[in-house]
Amino acid sequence: MEMQNPPPARWATRRAEKARRVASVAGIVDGVVIPTARMVEVFEKLLVPGDKVALEGNNQKQADFLSRELAKVDPARVNHLHMIIPAVSRAEHLDLFERGIARKLDFAYAGAQSLRISQFLADGNLEIGAIHTYIELYARLYVDLCPNMVLVAGYKADRQGNLYTGPSTEDTPALVEAAAFRDGLVIAQVNEIVDDPKDLPRVDIPGSWIDFVVQSDKPFFIEPLFTRDPRLIKPIHVLMAMLAIRGVYEKHQVQSLNHGIGFNTAAIELILPTYGEKLGLKGKICRHWTLNPHPTLIPAIESGWVESVHSFGGELGMERYVAARPDVFFTGRDGSMRSNRAMCQLAGQYAVDMFIGSTLQMDGLGNSSTVTHGRLTGFGGAPNMGHDPHGRRHATPAWLDLLQTDDPLERGRKLVVQMVETFQSGTQPTIVESLDAVEVGKVAGMPLAPVMIYGDDVTHVLTEEGIAYLYKARSLEERKKMIAAVAGVTPIGLRSTPAERAQLRHDGLVALPEDLGIHPTEASRSLLAAKSMADLVAWSGDLYEPPARFRSW
Amino acid sequence: MEMQNPPPARWATRRAEKARRVASVAGIVDGVVIPTARMVEVFEKLLVPGDKVALEGNNQKQADFLSRELAKVDPARVNHLHMIIPAVSRAEHLDLFERGIARKLDFAYAGAQSLRISQFLADGNLEIGAIHTYIELYARLYVDLCPNMVLVAGYKADRQGNLYTGPSTEDTPALVEAAAFRDGLVIAQVNEIVDDPKDLPRVDIPGSWIDFVVQSDKPFFIEPLFTRDPRLIKPIHVLMAMLAIRGVYEKHQVQSLNHGIGFNTAAIELILPTYGEKLGLKGKICRHWTLNPHPTLIPAIESGWVESVHSFGGELGMERYVAARPDVFFTGRDGSMRSNRAMCQLAGQYAVDMFIGSTLQMDGLGNSSTVTHGRLTGFGGAPNMGHDPHGRRHATPAWLDLLQTDDPLERGRKLVVQMVETFQSGTQPTIVESLDAVEVGKVAGMPLAPVMIYGDDVTHVLTEEGIAYLYKARSLEERKKMIAAVAGVTPIGLRSTPAERAQLRHDGLVALPEDLGIHPTEASRSLLAAKSMADLVAWSGDLYEPPARFRSW
Repeated sequence: MEMQNPPPARWATRRAEKARRVASVAGIVDGVVIPTARMVEVFEKLLVPGDKVALEGNNQKQADFLSRELAKVDPARVNHLHMIIPAVSRAEHLDLFERGIARKLDFAYAGAQSLRISQFLADGNLEIGAIHTYIELYARLYVDLCPNMVLVAGYKADRQGNLYTGPSTEDTPALVEAAAFRDGLVIAQVNEIVDDPKDLPRVDIPGSWIDFVVQSDKPFFIEPLFTRDPRLIKPIHVLMAMLAIRGVYEKHQVQSLNHGIGFNTAAIELILPTYGEKLGLKGKICRHWTLNPHPTLIPAIESGWVESVHSFGGELGMERYVAARPDVFFTGRDGSMRSNRAMCQLAGQYAVDMFIGSTLQMDGLGNSSTVTHGRLTGFGGAPNMGHDPHGRRHATPAWLDLLQTDDPLERGRKLVVQMVETFQSGTQPTIVESLDAVEVGKVAGMPLAPVMIYGDDVTHVLTEEGIAYLYKARSLEERKKMIAAVAGVTPIGLRSTPAERAQLRHDGLVALPEDLGIHPTEASRSLLAAKSMADLVAWSGDLYEPPARFRSW
Repeated sequence: MEMQNPPPARWATRRAEKARRVASVAGIVDGVVIPTARMVEVFEKLLVPGDKVALEGNNQKQADFLSRELAKVDPARVNHLHMIIPAVSRAEHLDLFERGIARKLDFAYAGAQSLRISQFLADGNLEIGAIHTYIELYARLYVDLCPNMVLVAGYKADRQGNLYTGPSTEDTPALVEAAAFRDGLVIAQVNEIVDDPKDLPRVDIPGSWIDFVVQSDKPFFIEPLFTRDPRLIKPIHVLMAMLAIRGVYEKHQVQSLNHGIGFNTAAIELILPTYGEKLGLKGKICRHWTLNPHPTLIPAIESGWVESVHSFGGELGMERYVAARPDVFFTGRDGSMRSNRAMCQLAGQYAVDMFIGSTLQMDGLGNSSTVTHGRLTGFGGAPNMGHDPHGRRHATPAWLDLLQTDDPLERGRKLVVQMVETFQSGTQPTIVESLDAVEVGKVAGMPLAPVMIYGDDVTHVLTEEGIAYLYKARSLEERKKMIAAVAGVTPIGLRSTPAERAQLRHDGLVALPEDLGIHPTEASRSLLAAKSMADLVAWSGDLYEPPARFRSW
């Protein structure tokens, strides 16, 4: 695998620089293997101040050994790094900034670290490049954010660098490719290095894309982010789930869809085998899914509702179940799950009928954000999938069902459903006059307010009060009235008069539970196909193994 | 690489069916290698009527040995195939339908075969699933169009199935992954099978994703689709190129962009080192590109305009040049080019400031299509990149420059520029009352008219008359007037009055050449940095090797 005619030096500066760096650790590494104990030293030799470093902080899978070791380098030698981290989820991600090793941050999502990011930003410890969606961030790696180094995590590698990522493939291929093919350095941490390539279950990334592998001191951290305990699902979630199934899924014949994290969507998954079955909808709705292997989807799978699931990443505890259901999930020749965040985001953007999500705040026009005062959370994948992609050209029944005229130049629409309780935890209204994000954006000096999903992209707002069919709104004024009509006793909701609501219902712009034949008294937990984690395990035939914190038995 | 616990049979029907099919050719194949002469026989054993078959017909690279052999199978044994072909470009793609082997077609682009598709459709020989963009079609492979078999092309494979795709990686990874991880069959044709894995330049697709390889009877066909002979660039193209540089690129500080195929954009590429240099724009515009290695980009690269190029695929004759400029292009460790259509479409959608394209017809509202009477061409990647992705959240100067208010909830916009001469070949107006696509859609029974780019996604229309800044239009009526103002003597253009044009110019909604300081007399071929293919070869230091049909020396 050697090059025939080396390119002229002045056009191969990146390649020469990479060769120089690789040569600098020749005395330390054994082939492609970096000794675990010498990772810090290797970082100090391989990195140069100002480097762009893409670090696999995923929703779930974390290159955490690498991030911990990187945070230990001497800031006098390695500094001003420009970090590109899809999900900023580990304390050490921000330690890099506190210690003066890194300076600039481009990211897509920050969960537990969102508060600290805001503080660092205020204190001048950190400069934000931009907040992206995942897929937008990957895209920039190929354009104007080409990384000098990429740090990823996998389960196993061999001594040629061939990498088995395990079920959570996630970002790994998208990050690695950007560096491997533009003379960047790629380092993978793995739980185990095998001597014989035959001991790799399969190859997810070829060895010729990887420069170094290092065995981590302990297995990489993985967060069971998509696990929802059915015990915490309340009757109000069941009511909203019933509204969704009758007023959205059945009405528009939603066959392919994405569900986010949340008790509302978990409730939908859990009443398909009961309420959905009773309505005779099996095989008619919810056949193809793009989502991680949610444990709460097990009863619907076992009842024959689900034809296929493509996933962004894996879910801790679901490994054996997924491997035992290859007709439904994507799996490799070795039998274990394969996921791919880039392809699944694409699928969620272009190939599904509906995105249904939730938010912390929504304004009277339907704009929403999870960014609230003091928290720069970012958006993950929601804006990518939560909009109508104008580049879509294929039609499905649901997409066509949103046409409002018979103009041959009118397009169908993707369903973008916001499913929110009118109040967060009883007292804090979800539907507000103005998003905190507007103020946060101003304070943080951002060019625009950090809005997650814009109101003009939302087709349905669903609350415990009813459904507003926003795609039918003929004016901004009407959109406001429709949202107010389902906004309950929030300040926005109190603007809606009984006469207005009656007119909106009459015109088919808003539907209340009774309009959909739903009696709130029916909305009880008894409709849940599984009421506890133990029920989910039973449904799975003992294949699902919930993480310890979800076990009460 | 064996499975530990086989899944229950009722949940592994796809896997069992694949194993059955693979076993049926055990007596024919040698490991993963199918003997070239027995391909037809192997197809007859591996395929089942009604199978979904994804065939790599790309813009350029063709799995043509496989498609030719597939067209020879006995229709009594193999029939009703559902073909998924990104680019329908070979005669045998349609022979499959004529011979009764295939029945249904999903595709994204049909160049030379567009006329025949329309005829087959009219004659009932073929049923269209949908016309997609490339990336939308890939996305569906992971949702509701999972293929039973995927047929791809590469340069070389080893006897473990490891695949080197060569510079035109294109669709290959996106297609292969969809089958490899859902118990579909993957067959790769290659120009050469090497015995020693070390003789592969690099691995683009791991062997554990590929079921069979077959050495083709001759190297796969590759079309130099992105090569434009500078000799055919006319002064009118140079004029339009000057308008684009001053009135769009400079005005909005366009730093990252996609160029399509066409003499207009080729002219822009060729006057950057002359006209662009004179305007002092080097380093300020056009730094990052997402496009195939256009030969007409060579002078700009050699003059230091271009920092990076990421590509969908390769371009015939550009292999040595690309390999010699790794600072600019994406290349593998072996030194040869790497491309990736899925990632480049993503980059073109989410990470660039501007898409600039052309069309065969545009209506008075800016809707455009390359579908004209009798030709179902499809759209390739244009709609994917030629719209404002509402999922984008990062800001760039160009994106922000399109803001019209200081509302913090207003978004920036991607520039979508339609660059068209008002007449095609002198007599046929490009700007028309109604798109042929509307009628074609009706006749073909399509749910919607096959529009390529919708008017509401277009931000600028640029003709030889001037530029209409459509993103500033405050109403549909105003948008119409702006387009009419630059539509010359087409029927649409004749509606524009001198008084209206004066007002639009005064309001900054339309700019004529003189408004941009451009004298049409300056617009001569003398501005082209290269005036012939020979000039391009000279600029490249003899690294560019034009295909025979472009050589006149």
